[in-house]
Amino acid sequence: MHIDFFETAELLLQKCWQLLDQASREGRHPLRTPVVGTVGSGGRQAELRTVVLRAVDPAARRLTFYTDRRSPKVEQLRQSQRVSWLFYDPGLALQIRATGEAVLHSRDEAAASAWRSLPAEHRKNYGATMPSGTAIEAPGQELPALWMENPPALEHTDYAFDHFLLVATVVEEIEGLLLHEQGHRRAQFRWSGEKQVWKGGWIVP
Amino acid sequence: MHIDFFETAELLLQKCWQLLDQASREGRHPLRTPVVGTVGSGGRQAELRTVVLRAVDPAARRLTFYTDRRSPKVEQLRQSQRVSWLFYDPGLALQIRATGEAVLHSRDEAAASAWRSLPAEHRKNYGATMPSGTAIEAPGQELPALWMENPPALEHTDYAFDHFLLVATVVEEIEGLLLHEQGHRRAQFRWSGEKQVWKGGWIVP
Repeated sequence: MHIDFFETAELLLQKCWQLLDQASREGRHPLRTPVVGTVGSGGRQAELRTVVLRAVDPAARRLTFYTDRRSPKVEQLRQSQRVSWLFYDPGLALQIRATGEAVLHSRDEAAASAWRSLPAEHRKNYGATMPSGTAIEAPGQELPALWMENPPALEHTDYAFDHFLLVATVVEEIEGLLLHEQGHRRAQFRWSGEKQVWKGGWIVP
Repeated sequence: MHIDFFETAELLLQKCWQLLDQASREGRHPLRTPVVGTVGSGGRQAELRTVVLRAVDPAARRLTFYTDRRSPKVEQLRQSQRVSWLFYDPGLALQIRATGEAVLHSRDEAAASAWRSLPAEHRKNYGATMPSGTAIEAPGQELPALWMENPPALEHTDYAFDHFLLVATVVEEIEGLLLHEQGHRRAQFRWSGEKQVWKGGWIVP
């Protein structure tokens, strides 16, 4: 990779947001499928899952993913709103980490707007008759009969939309780590609410 | 992917361990660079980072990574020993999650044996003069003068080995999720200490 945008820590920060923004709009970008971590088991254990980065707003410091309202991570987010993101682009050898507070949108205008722009085949994912994690006898048992008979029907039902949850994260800390044979480079920034700027710089990788 | 090993949940479990074992011995296997999550900030926040899967022992249910003893995750592991792993293979469209308890090995026979088999250029990573996360003026400032003058020298010093930590995780819960257009499949298993077997089956993806 060209490491010119790594000449200063500030340029790296800027590039991270730019790449994330780009990834949210590209189908196959490696930064589009990050890992999101929450805290479960009463604060004892990290819970990880891969999500799709759905929207990025660098000015509002916002990263967004979607989930099913019945998913265990929603209960975890009610206990601690802290969300940790980890992105990795093998081609760039760049890892981005970000942490912030979750804001949940369900059955509101933000959720409805996102729902409308979601392809029909993705809306189906919210139509399962049982919450994720429920034990079943065989794969597919959770899908409603109407899905089996007539897949496109479900997308029109309120049933699926009722389960749709938009999770926006307002980032408070972000760091970029460039892995490089001649020495890794890592920059870390924290949002200063008082001064309304990112404050930080290089740290030991 | 051939989904024949997904005919039963037990076959998926077996395949997951087999793939992890294989990944730990192959340089470029996508399952070789998982995300590991611990709990930080007094139980409020998940802390994520990419690690290299160094060793797998399916019979002992053990997954191993290496780190620097001065890394923040070591302090996090002292507060809660729970380690969460997330592996993803885009080619197989397979996600594996595993959680368990960490056992730390530093300056013991297990650490020394792993250290001896580590290539010289990797041993250097443990020779930084400052802990990771320390603020620095410019990238590279953490590297000892001797590394700059004569890179191979450091690998022979006890200084680097002193920082080398082997983290073994004994897995208590493991699940495989196969993403598939015709419906995802997810199997989850828990180790039964009493019966000394994995117990579980299909769950809603």
